[in-house]
Amino acid sequence: MSEELSMMRGGGDTLANLRKSFSIPKKVIYLNGNSLGPLQFRVKQRLKEVIDLEWGEDLITSWNKHGWMDLPDRVGEKIAPIIGASSGQVICCDSISINLFKLLASAMRLRPDRPKILSQVDNFPTDLYVAEGLEGMLGKSRCSLELRASKDLIDALDSEVAVLMLSHVNFKDGSIHDVSDLTRKAHENGTLVVWDLAHSAGVLSIALDDWDVDFAVGCGYKYLNGGPGAPSFLYVNRRLHDQLMQPLQGWMGHEKPFQFDKEFVPAAGIRQFVAGTPQILSLAALESALEIFKDLDIGFLQEKAALLSEYFLGLVVQESDLEEFQLISPTDPSKRGAQLSFSHPNAYAVSRAWIEEGVIADFRAPNILRVGFSPMVLSVEDIDLAVTKLIAVIQSRTFLKKKFQEKQKVT
Amino acid sequence: MSEELSMMRGGGDTLANLRKSFSIPKKVIYLNGNSLGPLQFRVKQRLKEVIDLEWGEDLITSWNKHGWMDLPDRVGEKIAPIIGASSGQVICCDSISINLFKLLASAMRLRPDRPKILSQVDNFPTDLYVAEGLEGMLGKSRCSLELRASKDLIDALDSEVAVLMLSHVNFKDGSIHDVSDLTRKAHENGTLVVWDLAHSAGVLSIALDDWDVDFAVGCGYKYLNGGPGAPSFLYVNRRLHDQLMQPLQGWMGHEKPFQFDKEFVPAAGIRQFVAGTPQILSLAALESALEIFKDLDIGFLQEKAALLSEYFLGLVVQESDLEEFQLISPTDPSKRGAQLSFSHPNAYAVSRAWIEEGVIADFRAPNILRVGFSPMVLSVEDIDLAVTKLIAVIQSRTFLKKKFQEKQKVT
Repeated sequence: MSEELSMMRGGGDTLANLRKSFSIPKKVIYLNGNSLGPLQFRVKQRLKEVIDLEWGEDLITSWNKHGWMDLPDRVGEKIAPIIGASSGQVICCDSISINLFKLLASAMRLRPDRPKILSQVDNFPTDLYVAEGLEGMLGKSRCSLELRASKDLIDALDSEVAVLMLSHVNFKDGSIHDVSDLTRKAHENGTLVVWDLAHSAGVLSIALDDWDVDFAVGCGYKYLNGGPGAPSFLYVNRRLHDQLMQPLQGWMGHEKPFQFDKEFVPAAGIRQFVAGTPQILSLAALESALEIFKDLDIGFLQEKAALLSEYFLGLVVQESDLEEFQLISPTDPSKRGAQLSFSHPNAYAVSRAWIEEGVIADFRAPNILRVGFSPMVLSVEDIDLAVTKLIAVIQSRTFLKKKFQEKQKVT
Repeated sequence: MSEELSMMRGGGDTLANLRKSFSIPKKVIYLNGNSLGPLQFRVKQRLKEVIDLEWGEDLITSWNKHGWMDLPDRVGEKIAPIIGASSGQVICCDSISINLFKLLASAMRLRPDRPKILSQVDNFPTDLYVAEGLEGMLGKSRCSLELRASKDLIDALDSEVAVLMLSHVNFKDGSIHDVSDLTRKAHENGTLVVWDLAHSAGVLSIALDDWDVDFAVGCGYKYLNGGPGAPSFLYVNRRLHDQLMQPLQGWMGHEKPFQFDKEFVPAAGIRQFVAGTPQILSLAALESALEIFKDLDIGFLQEKAALLSEYFLGLVVQESDLEEFQLISPTDPSKRGAQLSFSHPNAYAVSRAWIEEGVIADFRAPNILRVGFSPMVLSVEDIDLAVTKLIAVIQSRTFLKKKFQEKQKVT
């Protein structure tokens, strides 16, 4: 590991050039690409074009002239290779919550004799809320959400489980599921799988087709750098396309939207999962943001993120001033995503004080500092500086002042 | 009417200044604001700020620092006065299709003994598709869509109708429903109402509170000028807020999203109707676009649109070269929205040839030319020129060439 690090420091970081595509303020070290990916210069440029020329000059004609109609498909096609999907299985529109609803409802219909959705107790809450919403609509006899700890999931796969819904990388501690293994075990049980790739797409090697995944959703605004609230993507394995009926039917998912027929006839293939009119500005930003992934091997991104996180962890562990930071992520880098999560009694105040020093990471309630390692924008030197600043924050006890101010605000 | 027109022509158009806010190419006469509202200079400026500074510089901190968290509420509050709603009843997120699903599902739960959704056979298709999707999910015994012609709607209100779902202005012929009257009749029958304001919000006087409407949705990208695919808005009458459970539950509609609880507890009031993370770029564009409505009386917009459409119609009717244009909209301007629809045997080809002359209107299958009168951007002189160009298109028979080219493309 240390040899690779020395190489990176000595100009051997083959991904270092990517940083130049991003418009991040010079004084900022951004350890939060896992929450909101940063802005690229090309995206700025592209948005200007979409706003000034496509909307401003060509107006309504842009739906055809500039291909807005096909934007959900086109963005889907660009995401496909990033998640190991062949053509025609990925589309981009709406939010993860909405897309999960489409997929869960579709999946439950394929297993009418099985009422259960199985998920993990600490899965990202929106995933659970969507399942709870479906449960409330259909009634518990037709749909009931069962939650288990990660280690108990496989034992809970019984003949009543229609769908296993999990996140590839846990949002809180960063732990990774073995998608391939769990998918196989679910299938052996006749259970369909829905994977949430929010914290893995764009930074971990993913092979949805090879792993024979049924359904997946993922996030446009984290490692794909699509901008705040960028639309989500949705994957449906080709072998299921003809069997599905998704309930959020909108005119943009119709076979012939401009026929204005009163009966819904779903478009062929993955397009049926588009519902209403897509939000073009946000979609166009994401499309442009994806260009950087062209010809890029995600394996290199994963490797660099792992190296940086190992290095960060090493620095924290050897520094006595940082002993209150307790790692809650897996210690084995191959078992975690591109993040490290630490508990700390004053995690919130520390995160605020660190931001004032120019280092942006995430706080997650109640006491977690979540540090993301976007390999496109971070260098070994950034990690050095970030840890130095963390030590300074702790030593100067500025975070206690922050804590005091927060308390005053609350009372 | 002619006196008012002369006044408008002679500098008496009190709304003429609004045109200066818009960035429309000089050579274009835009009769399509009812499909995609044009770009305003302030929106361009605001988007640059959101992209360069909020996303680019302040990154993840903008969720609090620049109020992204509250953007759905804030935009809702700005739309509220445009549709006659008092504070706390309007929110902006997702598409019309998605929002209709939330509302229809919520409404059906309030009337568990009534299985029917009643709508109009030529309602905008996405509205019908959404109801069909709900029907497919719940089964026809719990939810069944009934379609009637406009004139037969009231007779079809029986004890089985849970919800009456209609559009204020019909997308095809522009005819207006009397929202107040139909809402009252529905309520007398114990039926809830869902109104789609896509073709009226921002151009017709609307008084949702006074009319005691239960639910409404509307469009951000037509007369509100929010940009391509701008998010939709959603209104729920305050008296219903505490009785509802909407099924598309996402973390942004949770009472405390950053607690990451595993049980969904809906946020108080209208916020519970937000689902996933909102698309900030598209929302920010819409927020900025709404500024022009501040202190603007929608009644004046409605009046000007009616005047312009009457003038247009008068010119068409008196011109023998345009005799093939058959009005399918109501002849009484108080009975139609800000549009005129004409059938014409070569409507598609004519619309294409007209666009080449710089006049942009809509074609709607199979044979309709739909002309929109956005009162913010159009003048009497624009109407003169548009009709002159239409006559030229017909006289020169350029549209027939278009038709021929289209045929060649198809074969």
